Amino acid sequence: MKDGFEVTPYKVSGDIDYDELVDRFGTKKIDGALIERFARHGPVHAMLRRGVFYSHRDLDWILDEHEKGNGFTLYTGRGPSGPIHIGHTMPWMFAKYLQDTFKAKMWFQLTDDEKFMFYDHLTLEDTKKWGYENALDIIALGFDPKLTNIFLDTEYIKTMYPTAVRAAKKINFSTIRAVFGFDNSNNIGSIFFTSIQTVPCFLESMLQDRNVPCLIPCGIDQDPHFRVTRDIAEGLGFYKPALVHAKLMPSLAGSEKMSTSTNLNDTIFMTDDEDTARKKVMNAFTGGRVSVEEQRRMGGEPDICSIYQYNLYHFEPDDSKLAQLRSDCKSGSIMCGECKGQLFEKIWTFLRKHQDEREKAKDRIEDFFIRD
Amino acid sequence: MKDGFEVTPYKVSGDIDYDELVDRFGTKKIDGALIERFARHGPVHAMLRRGVFYSHRDLDWILDEHEKGNGFTLYTGRGPSGPIHIGHTMPWMFAKYLQDTFKAKMWFQLTDDEKFMFYDHLTLEDTKKWGYENALDIIALGFDPKLTNIFLDTEYIKTMYPTAVRAAKKINFSTIRAVFGFDNSNNIGSIFFTSIQTVPCFLESMLQDRNVPCLIPCGIDQDPHFRVTRDIAEGLGFYKPALVHAKLMPSLAGSEKMSTSTNLNDTIFMTDDEDTARKKVMNAFTGGRVSVEEQRRMGGEPDICSIYQYNLYHFEPDDSKLAQLRSDCKSGSIMCGECKGQLFEKIWTFLRKHQDEREKAKDRIEDFFIRD
Repeated sequence: MKDGFEVTPYKVSGDIDYDELVDRFGTKKIDGALIERFARHGPVHAMLRRGVFYSHRDLDWILDEHEKGNGFTLYTGRGPSGPIHIGHTMPWMFAKYLQDTFKAKMWFQLTDDEKFMFYDHLTLEDTKKWGYENALDIIALGFDPKLTNIFLDTEYIKTMYPTAVRAAKKINFSTIRAVFGFDNSNNIGSIFFTSIQTVPCFLESMLQDRNVPCLIPCGIDQDPHFRVTRDIAEGLGFYKPALVHAKLMPSLAGSEKMSTSTNLNDTIFMTDDEDTARKKVMNAFTGGRVSVEEQRRMGGEPDICSIYQYNLYHFEPDDSKLAQLRSDCKSGSIMCGECKGQLFEKIWTFLRKHQDEREKAKDRIEDFFIRD
Repeated sequence: MKDGFEVTPYKVSGDIDYDELVDRFGTKKIDGALIERFARHGPVHAMLRRGVFYSHRDLDWILDEHEKGNGFTLYTGRGPSGPIHIGHTMPWMFAKYLQDTFKAKMWFQLTDDEKFMFYDHLTLEDTKKWGYENALDIIALGFDPKLTNIFLDTEYIKTMYPTAVRAAKKINFSTIRAVFGFDNSNNIGSIFFTSIQTVPCFLESMLQDRNVPCLIPCGIDQDPHFRVTRDIAEGLGFYKPALVHAKLMPSLAGSEKMSTSTNLNDTIFMTDDEDTARKKVMNAFTGGRVSVEEQRRMGGEPDICSIYQYNLYHFEPDDSKLAQLRSDCKSGSIMCGECKGQLFEKIWTFLRKHQDEREKAKDRIEDFFIRD
């Protein structure tokens, strides 16, 4: 770990300074002018207004291309290693907003090969099974089946492999070491994998046999993959993919990234039942004080509170209501228990609807999947 | 280069000491007892009798399995980077002998991905085109279409990829560095590739859903790939592949390996016309003396003569005729010109028949190819 925190697709640790990360990665912050451009195309998503999606590469060019009528395609993905939690859905809901606003085709990659090669305890059967399970959650979020292709790497490899091999020829191990922090003990599948993660940027161009711009909404931890892709894209005859980067959704324990690899009690899964979800929310880390008396007097600290972050990131899209909540917290006029209860209601409304849609998705898998 | 010579799948240099290579690689020499076992199943191929195929791993076990009625499958391959020359056909003719003798199924891999990733000047279109060109030469050698599956990696990747990924998970970069002599400047496709070369050992087992022994006839330079495969095979639930290794066919310049990357004039291609082939043979390096007079007096040196090696390896299957030729050479009773003329006749007979069969093969491609 250098400078107090580390962010790669394979390791997130320390307290992330998101502004410094922009400098470290060489991306650009999303500024008011760029948000203003989004406003011309429809309502601006809360995650964009509030700086959850806060960094980008060539997002302005994507809007240029859209405005010129050239269109663009979207690409995002999921490493299917277990169940989906709320943190996962955040960039996907933003992706759906982009799809809806710009009528953009979405390529949704399920990297069953990657998760198998990176996790000792998972078989390829496990990751494939999780791929199909996770697809139900993706479909449940409301993507347009006419504009969405979901695929598992192992089921779409014949289409992808020639381009992956062309990409691989242009990337040496020195680059991989530097970008991902790998060493000689990494398995050769993990070393090769970024080639496979490169291809979906170009799938629409390959399909249409013309160059189609591609925008990748993702957590900023995934940027290193596409930095490599951007370095080689033009040499392969394609546009560099553009990116829009989200901060990482905090866990209910207040740590920097919600994750299935940390404590399961701090993570709300999309299939949690009401009692389970309630318990997790009610046990969350907050910015409250040691006693009710002290909190009434000093007020809470929303900026370190996981409950407030959940509202900010996802569950309170109304800016004035969020501002009211912040003010009530800081003034000591709302206690943590009440605030948690309110958040739980919003979360459970979201989960209940999701779980209904997830059941229906079981009959709609084939409307979304693409295979060799 | 250490100890005067180097042999890997990607580099052959120096004067190869084949006995030392057996020690270095940890293989076994084929002894009289093992050749005797082959004799029980039919005539013993000249390449086996004469020690062209001279080294093995578990070849005795393959015969055990065959004799027990369990059968075995064959696997060999070709990196399609250009036209086929006589040196390439040598292990394939031996493979055909094994197929005919043991009625064994053959998996013939065309590694278009590998050659693209290892050669700067080749596109993937080039290597695929060469794959189909080379397949004509393979078919022309007389393999049984009912017992032979030829495939291009890029066209069979969907079948192979899951097993390649399972293999890749068990191989780290340290191993690749040590076995292939790679370093950080190698591209990540070349690093991953041995996983793809591993899979055909297991294709028959995958297809039959039971463990089927596999024998790989190949040049000894290819052994390192399968040393890696053997180390991981049992962990993947398969038998270790067995190997039988050939010495490398010398070029007409007398160097250790016929190759398209050295002087084209020292290499006889399967599609050479009569004049071209004749010129190459007549200009070959021999074990002759500086003058006819001296050669009559001192005799020639068959052991350093490319013409004699061609007879030994391939073109004079009759042991008594070969012995006579050797004796005539050493006694000075045959001059190089005459000997070259005799070899040329044998080579041209072989090439003419091959070229006829190669034309016919154009209509038979689909009898041999297997794709996803």
